[in-house]
Amino acid sequence: MAHVTDYIRTIPDFPHEGILFRDVTTLFADRDGLRLAIEGLVEACEGLQIDTVAGLEARGFILGGALADRLGTGFVPIRKKGKLPGRTIGQSYKLEYGEAEVELHDDALHQGQKVLLVDDLLATGGTAEAGIKLIERLGAEVVACAFIIDLKDLGGRKLLEGLGHRVEALCAYEGA
Amino acid sequence: MAHVTDYIRTIPDFPHEGILFRDVTTLFADRDGLRLAIEGLVEACEGLQIDTVAGLEARGFILGGALADRLGTGFVPIRKKGKLPGRTIGQSYKLEYGEAEVELHDDALHQGQKVLLVDDLLATGGTAEAGIKLIERLGAEVVACAFIIDLKDLGGRKLLEGLGHRVEALCAYEGA
Repeated sequence: MAHVTDYIRTIPDFPHEGILFRDVTTLFADRDGLRLAIEGLVEACEGLQIDTVAGLEARGFILGGALADRLGTGFVPIRKKGKLPGRTIGQSYKLEYGEAEVELHDDALHQGQKVLLVDDLLATGGTAEAGIKLIERLGAEVVACAFIIDLKDLGGRKLLEGLGHRVEALCAYEGA
Repeated sequence: MAHVTDYIRTIPDFPHEGILFRDVTTLFADRDGLRLAIEGLVEACEGLQIDTVAGLEARGFILGGALADRLGTGFVPIRKKGKLPGRTIGQSYKLEYGEAEVELHDDALHQGQKVLLVDDLLATGGTAEAGIKLIERLGAEVVACAFIIDLKDLGGRKLLEGLGHRVEALCAYEGA
């Protein structure tokens, strides 16, 4: 049976030397691959009550829009600093060198709303953790964090599960 | 009957003074709004043969993933310079001040493939035109350009139709 890993391409030395970049564009470009990804995530979330899907910029938007459509919910973008036009709250997180910040509209979610957080890839979990904090600061609840890929040696799953969150990933790779 | 404009919010002076920014995040965040948007675009493309959906970064990804899923096709991202990990072709376009560049993986499309180009908003049409050029440079064909919003005074529709393309938009606003 076909699996998402059949469609994921590995590109060496992107974005810099020594990194094996797991490229999901070849998964998304293939009609069967895209179906496997979306249906795999829908299945992984079966039984959960989900009111809204939140996607992390930018590849999380591709999955998030489709998942929100399948689940019959709305979609909320978590964006890089300065991209959202309305009033926002921001949360910074550490990068390998320095830090970055993600933002969420301050009226995008309400108290008690149950949110599925989506991105293509879980690495250190830093961006996802920042996204979770934004969602929780608006009083909403993250019911699961869903990814295509878990780069398991980077500790993202451990971090998010340690914070009490359910993590779903369709495949895992060793190494960075 | 509800219409997408019921859910679109206008934010003054974003990204800079004098601009009335049409914000689709409130449309996407609402479950009924998101349905109206996606189903409206699916309906607008009825009868067209579409092999692939291409989305312009970043809001075009939200719609593009969902549309590809509805249409049973793959999804191809057209991204800002430096974001795609594989071998790319690039196309620059004019901004109000200076220029920018979008990129496409050089193996993302093949000769004769029929592509639906998607973004949230049509303004001057500069980004869409650059996207069309990239698609056509790979030998593929743009069968329609689909947007939620047409800012009609900015001339994007005229530009794209003048190039022989079919333009679909779910609503239009006067002014910039």
